[in-house]
Amino acid sequence: MSSAASADFKEYLFGPWKIAAEEVFVASPHCFAFVNLKPVVPGHVLVSPKRVVARFAELSPEEVSDLWCLAQRVGSALEPHFGASSLTLAIQDGPQAGQTVPHVHVHILPRKAGDFENNDEVYDAIDAASKDAQAAHSGEKLDLDKERKVRTREEMAAEAAELRTLFK
Amino acid sequence: MSSAASADFKEYLFGPWKIAAEEVFVASPHCFAFVNLKPVVPGHVLVSPKRVVARFAELSPEEVSDLWCLAQRVGSALEPHFGASSLTLAIQDGPQAGQTVPHVHVHILPRKAGDFENNDEVYDAIDAASKDAQAAHSGEKLDLDKERKVRTREEMAAEAAELRTLFK
Repeated sequence: MSSAASADFKEYLFGPWKIAAEEVFVASPHCFAFVNLKPVVPGHVLVSPKRVVARFAELSPEEVSDLWCLAQRVGSALEPHFGASSLTLAIQDGPQAGQTVPHVHVHILPRKAGDFENNDEVYDAIDAASKDAQAAHSGEKLDLDKERKVRTREEMAAEAAELRTLFK
Repeated sequence: MSSAASADFKEYLFGPWKIAAEEVFVASPHCFAFVNLKPVVPGHVLVSPKRVVARFAELSPEEVSDLWCLAQRVGSALEPHFGASSLTLAIQDGPQAGQTVPHVHVHILPRKAGDFENNDEVYDAIDAASKDAQAAHSGEKLDLDKERKVRTREEMAAEAAELRTLFK
């Protein structure tokens, strides 16, 4: 369905995993933004450098600038699109900070009043979702009784196609 | 004690509050890094643009680049200095994301294995500390029975003087 629009994009590596062109919704010279297998809130997306590096310190000044200018652009477009009024922007930089995929990625979460009872619960949710996403990528069996399920490729492609229209 | 070294720095506004030159440990063309009134872990510091703006979207591309290049430099220096192996890097961008001071600031936290039982507890701690710091800035009476106290100006100046030596 989004083959025409997604033809402008290509597949990228996210650590050891492949992110299909259909899941990418905007790219910059050094970075790309993609939808999430298991979003914690509506519009929870990720922005990564195209170069596979684990730690933020490994990025060149050009990559740092490009990563955060793209993150700013994505956040500014997604916040009103999802009816939100704030953004959580975070890098879990290294395993002791909760990083599960060894490839720098900025989490961008549109936030609304009352989306979590306590603000910090959003990070519990990011951690749980990261672990589930990693399990899904690795083909591990997921506990399908859990409330929030990993999304299908079709759902992710549909969301990416919708978000792509914000960056014309 | 740090008057010689801190003479290179000046006072900056952090939202409505003043950050003394003694609390600043490194600066860049558009941004400054300063020690925290109530660090959640050893080496928990903040990096802000010199211009007082509430939201990340209000920063120019030059400010975005400068902010994150300084954050990268600070994180890279503080991680080994505090014997850490990862970093948490986060912006609470807007009140619905837990922002208490209406001035863009990057939280940088050196992280170690076992520093929190669950990774997400670090964010509970950031939220609690932000509220306490705001109360202290506004002159509200703090509950001194609480385990973690707001630091004195002398303690903060001593830490900033120590950190300044990492950026010669």
